[in-house]
Amino acid sequence: MSPTSQKAPGDARPGGRSARVRAAVHRAVEELLAESTVEALTIPVIADRAGVHSTTVYRRWGSVGELLAAVAINRFSGDLVVPDTGTLRGDLEQWATDVATDLADPDVSALMRATVGASKNGPADVCVVDRRAQLAAMLARETERGGRPPSVEQVEDFVLGPLYYRATYTAQPGDPAWARTLVTHVL
Amino acid sequence: MSPTSQKAPGDARPGGRSARVRAAVHRAVEELLAESTVEALTIPVIADRAGVHSTTVYRRWGSVGELLAAVAINRFSGDLVVPDTGTLRGDLEQWATDVATDLADPDVSALMRATVGASKNGPADVCVVDRRAQLAAMLARETERGGRPPSVEQVEDFVLGPLYYRATYTAQPGDPAWARTLVTHVL
Repeated sequence: MSPTSQKAPGDARPGGRSARVRAAVHRAVEELLAESTVEALTIPVIADRAGVHSTTVYRRWGSVGELLAAVAINRFSGDLVVPDTGTLRGDLEQWATDVATDLADPDVSALMRATVGASKNGPADVCVVDRRAQLAAMLARETERGGRPPSVEQVEDFVLGPLYYRATYTAQPGDPAWARTLVTHVL
Repeated sequence: MSPTSQKAPGDARPGGRSARVRAAVHRAVEELLAESTVEALTIPVIADRAGVHSTTVYRRWGSVGELLAAVAINRFSGDLVVPDTGTLRGDLEQWATDVATDLADPDVSALMRATVGASKNGPADVCVVDRRAQLAAMLARETERGGRPPSVEQVEDFVLGPLYYRATYTAQPGDPAWARTLVTHVL
């Protein structure tokens, strides 16, 4: 159950051979990211690893950038369950801990960096669109309970901001204890 | 006057032909980033644009990743003067406004995204190492005045965090007014 319905090019056709090609190509991208420098990530190299023709990949995704966006949407969608602990603080603490744990995974950060690198004409929002939707769901639930939660923007700025800044630009990724202090700061 | 002395490979030799090659190659990278997709940014393409042999570029920088790091260090070093307004709040507000303005420049964000993309084996800290040094200088000055400033980490988390998060991952880059509210939040 993903809270977003966003689709990237090349990911619209379900089932059969098409699904197998998609899975092989996505897996090839993730394997190559884990192994190689960014220069090696070209469509011929990806197609070779996936065991499909380059023309198939070009026709379906168009560019490495589009393909990375598709892989990122797939990886960053629906893999975190929206916490439901009964309180907003509990929900946000669980969620921030989950995000910190995810960002500390080298495969996740490699995919994230490559997606940022490939999104030169705009922001790499495929990396965060699902987090934002999960956040909106938790804050809406608090409003229904009669609470007065901070805005989505405030929690993005002061919880996701530090988490993604550290993961992207510093050598000290956040740990769960620190992620929980960010929640205290915003509530 | 750059507050850091960090050097990237290929940038150590001053003067003469070496300096001209360096300038031509750096300019080629920035031009190509402004024009092309990330796939096109290979050493042969950069060398051709710079009018030098590929072997020169390979020998000096080794990879597109190292070269992008060198361009980023050059671009993100020393171009912001450390504000000295007489108060910590004034200094940080000026500094946050400068950072927000810089991050809103499409050429800056293109170079930043490409550097992140090329730094797949670690964080893209060349993008922020100079900001951190400027910040440390302002906070040290406040301590000398007898003040009790927040830590470098706190200002990084709650000022640089939101600024870089928005520039990298969202479609709403920060503006100067919003940047100043981040400072209010941390003081």
